[in-house]
Amino acid sequence: MRAVVVKSGQVTVVPDYPQPIPSAGEALIQVKLAGICSTDLEIVKGYYGFQGVLGHEFVGVVVDCAEQSWVGQRVVGTISLGCRVCAVCLHRGPEHCPNRQTLGIWHKDGIFADYQTLPIVNLIPVPDELPDEAAVFVEPLAAALRIREQLPIRPSQTIAVVGPGRLGLLIGKVLSLSGNAVTMLGRNESSLTLPQQWGLTAGLTGSYLDNHFDFVVEATGNEAGLRESLRLVRPQGTLVLKSTFHGAPSFDLTKIVVSEINVVGSRCGPFVPALRLLGSGQVPVTTTIEGEYPLDQALTALEHAARPGARKILLRMGGL
Amino acid sequence: MRAVVVKSGQVTVVPDYPQPIPSAGEALIQVKLAGICSTDLEIVKGYYGFQGVLGHEFVGVVVDCAEQSWVGQRVVGTISLGCRVCAVCLHRGPEHCPNRQTLGIWHKDGIFADYQTLPIVNLIPVPDELPDEAAVFVEPLAAALRIREQLPIRPSQTIAVVGPGRLGLLIGKVLSLSGNAVTMLGRNESSLTLPQQWGLTAGLTGSYLDNHFDFVVEATGNEAGLRESLRLVRPQGTLVLKSTFHGAPSFDLTKIVVSEINVVGSRCGPFVPALRLLGSGQVPVTTTIEGEYPLDQALTALEHAARPGARKILLRMGGL
Repeated sequence: MRAVVVKSGQVTVVPDYPQPIPSAGEALIQVKLAGICSTDLEIVKGYYGFQGVLGHEFVGVVVDCAEQSWVGQRVVGTISLGCRVCAVCLHRGPEHCPNRQTLGIWHKDGIFADYQTLPIVNLIPVPDELPDEAAVFVEPLAAALRIREQLPIRPSQTIAVVGPGRLGLLIGKVLSLSGNAVTMLGRNESSLTLPQQWGLTAGLTGSYLDNHFDFVVEATGNEAGLRESLRLVRPQGTLVLKSTFHGAPSFDLTKIVVSEINVVGSRCGPFVPALRLLGSGQVPVTTTIEGEYPLDQALTALEHAARPGARKILLRMGGL
Repeated sequence: MRAVVVKSGQVTVVPDYPQPIPSAGEALIQVKLAGICSTDLEIVKGYYGFQGVLGHEFVGVVVDCAEQSWVGQRVVGTISLGCRVCAVCLHRGPEHCPNRQTLGIWHKDGIFADYQTLPIVNLIPVPDELPDEAAVFVEPLAAALRIREQLPIRPSQTIAVVGPGRLGLLIGKVLSLSGNAVTMLGRNESSLTLPQQWGLTAGLTGSYLDNHFDFVVEATGNEAGLRESLRLVRPQGTLVLKSTFHGAPSFDLTKIVVSEINVVGSRCGPFVPALRLLGSGQVPVTTTIEGEYPLDQALTALEHAARPGARKILLRMGGL
């Protein structure tokens, strides 16, 4: 089968990668459509030390499974595979298992390929009425929703999202759905157009005073964005870290202590609520699709996704 | 009056510092006994840019006040003075007022002196049966208690305190009072003696595995302690930052995001519960007193307090 493989700092579309074989409790999925996210681009740069098939945002169809009822089912899949026996798995789920695999990120081939296997417990059926082009956003939309799983946010509290990119935009929209005033903050005017089209208030990060917001979500992944986010959160407010950072950025811990800031790391979120939101049409995800490429042109697609300000780039596998 | 004054990087005992005059709503306090804490030592090093009279931990007696009922009352005092009109003061109290003064730390002379004034609202009467030598610990004990004001901690959850110094020891003891297993962690064996005498489990920081504790309290104020603290907290656990850091230390934000760590800054705490605890005798604070000096020997006292591993050093003003 075809697969987009990262190896020794090189990305190639391999035409004859071995097709995976489902074990007991697993399903073989034929991938239909996949999304490129910033994590994929960072893996290409070598930040995670990952080698193998790239990609973790997908919609596919089960084509082989011992549990026959799954065969033919259109599915999305959660990306963490835990050992299912350790205390962490039993108490908190697979996302924090010390022996976990993560689809296309850590010790598990991803889904920029014609096929991949996943445990059945990772699969969620996609409602028939939800098109692939919306369902493929379930993973980042769930990651946005994760913030509301972690934190009680009252509708009268103010929120800023620093970094109005692919993920930041989803976060801002999701957090605005309960009536909160959400301000999307970017470094240049062009990044604010799409947030404004989505009905969100948007502005330049530097134009807001210190301590302005109850909640600030850091979605840039860079040190300057981190500093600005911390600057903008009010005393006893909450800073949500939604992007990973490479290396060990330095920042002003004194404000965290003196102003008693709560800093919360936030990662993977719940797929089922995200599918409900996608079905409701409240988050117009498909308006962010900027390009779609066949799998064979994955390298061009990755280059496109890496352009500054680029929105969602999809890979279509064909064959279904 | 006499006062220990920091000015242009020099500390001196000034014999004729102007005695403050209480305004309406204030009381003039004759200081009896004061404690030296790490913040004082950092101010001496110039870290806060503070100039004026040092010191904020004290017990004293009101000697002048328009509200006569206060005169003769033995008191302790909270250290933040807010503007009392801004939204922060009205909603959250003076600790986070943008225009606040902080006793002996920020724009307000401290109490290593014969006299100081404080607003009556900052004063708390000391019960007669509580000796000065215990009451003088109210401010750091309140700071330790602050953690339980901020966070729900269940008795079955595990806690480590990294840094078994003056404040760390109080934190460990306070957190152990509800049945939690608390481990005091230090870099050398000698720092573990007093924690063990207080009935706390103690060990060397490096001897514990990653992700070992539900809660980790960082009480070292140095970058190595911060790194170790973050290393020791489990996925979805909580890291409490109780010490300020100078400059902008770098640390591994990736763990915070990927393991969804909650980082909480923590500062000043509630005096009234701290006085109750001191009265109950559950926290044997006076066993940590390592030396007491008259005010005139404040420089020697500061040098003593700055020795590695030094415990509590008190200053007695005399005259009462």
